[in-house]
Amino acid sequence: MLAHYGLERLTEEADRRWAAAGELLAEGDVLFEPPVATCTKVCCLALNYVAHAEESGLEVPPDPVLFFKPPSALTGHNRPVVAPARTRHLEHEVELAVVIGSVTRDLPQERWREAVAGYTVLNDMTARDLQLTNIAHNQPWDQAKGFDTFAPAGPYLATVDEVPDPQDVELTLEVDGEVRQRANTKQMVFGVPRLIADLSDGMTLLPGDLIATGTVAGIAPLKHGDVMRATVAGVGTLVNEVVFRSA
Amino acid sequence: MLAHYGLERLTEEADRRWAAAGELLAEGDVLFEPPVATCTKVCCLALNYVAHAEESGLEVPPDPVLFFKPPSALTGHNRPVVAPARTRHLEHEVELAVVIGSVTRDLPQERWREAVAGYTVLNDMTARDLQLTNIAHNQPWDQAKGFDTFAPAGPYLATVDEVPDPQDVELTLEVDGEVRQRANTKQMVFGVPRLIADLSDGMTLLPGDLIATGTVAGIAPLKHGDVMRATVAGVGTLVNEVVFRSA
Repeated sequence: MLAHYGLERLTEEADRRWAAAGELLAEGDVLFEPPVATCTKVCCLALNYVAHAEESGLEVPPDPVLFFKPPSALTGHNRPVVAPARTRHLEHEVELAVVIGSVTRDLPQERWREAVAGYTVLNDMTARDLQLTNIAHNQPWDQAKGFDTFAPAGPYLATVDEVPDPQDVELTLEVDGEVRQRANTKQMVFGVPRLIADLSDGMTLLPGDLIATGTVAGIAPLKHGDVMRATVAGVGTLVNEVVFRSA
Repeated sequence: MLAHYGLERLTEEADRRWAAAGELLAEGDVLFEPPVATCTKVCCLALNYVAHAEESGLEVPPDPVLFFKPPSALTGHNRPVVAPARTRHLEHEVELAVVIGSVTRDLPQERWREAVAGYTVLNDMTARDLQLTNIAHNQPWDQAKGFDTFAPAGPYLATVDEVPDPQDVELTLEVDGEVRQRANTKQMVFGVPRLIADLSDGMTLLPGDLIATGTVAGIAPLKHGDVMRATVAGVGTLVNEVVFRSA
């Protein structure tokens, strides 16, 4: 078992070297960590696709809307997502996540590439019952999205050269083979350049920080034992099984 | 100049040793860092005092309501709080903050003391104009509270023996000599034991993480050049000057 595998996507050359060394491992023999070794914040975008805002009954905002998940919420590929006993209604939200590669503050939009180390897949797990209770009372709902394992990410960090245009990749989320979410990042309300400029305006982004760029229509409840496959084309497929503590 | 002074409150014995060594420094000669050297999240409580919930026009919640500030928002005593150009309405919120001392998960309320390293003062700076725009549209408002320098904390970490009862300390906030906020932590809706139990239910608290326990009535706008003095009796007085980028 390797403790760290997810730090960067293995290139074919690396694969060849491992094979030559007789050490090629089956994926099932690898314990995946989150794709960033250090992370101080997961910046998540709310309502960044029109069809998702509509299904949520909320307006598309005129500027990006942000909330945070703490680093303690991160987990890796093939690890369980565990819903604590206080929730009965857990939902998936597949997202393209930007991995920050340099200390970034007040960056003009046209220089956005300077901030980016690469991309990964993030599934913005949400205790929808808790969140809706908060929304009904005009309260922040960070706790509903901040539990341990509620930010599965990975399997890899895809480098910038592997994703030439982050504004044209397909997102899908399947549960036990059924496609629940499918869209293209072309449909984002605010694209990656605008998000980096806006978030870094007054707030320092640090290497290993993540920007989860918002989910797409098709959010739906999960049950104990469901297996989620969150795919961002060209970036990876992140697989996590759902465990309910209340089950 | 010392780079690090805020890691823990200097005891009288330490003061004596410094004096004996001829190295006693005036506070003005010391550059204060945040009172925690590592921090992965600042957990902030919303609406944890009845009078503050009333002035905000919001209900007192039946359970603790949480939001996060990122570690990049932390700054120290005697450092400026800088409001980015996008806000014209900055407000102070004095709070007692709990400093987590051990890895804490699913801790029963009666064992709350095991989690605590000590206490400090935190001023939950808020771009009220941005926050109220978010609230009006049922959006999360983390960005309005998450800018760099929006979590001044310190000057010291007061150890647990220095604060025998965190549920009976006075909070005050003065701006240029005028008292704006004054209350006692007796008036908290949810006390420190309940907060630690609730937050650690499903979420791991790590050493250096902070729990800002909520502010009290008297929030009010600040202007460029205002000097805020946030005091938690027995814990310390945190002083920060306000700088508006838009000024």
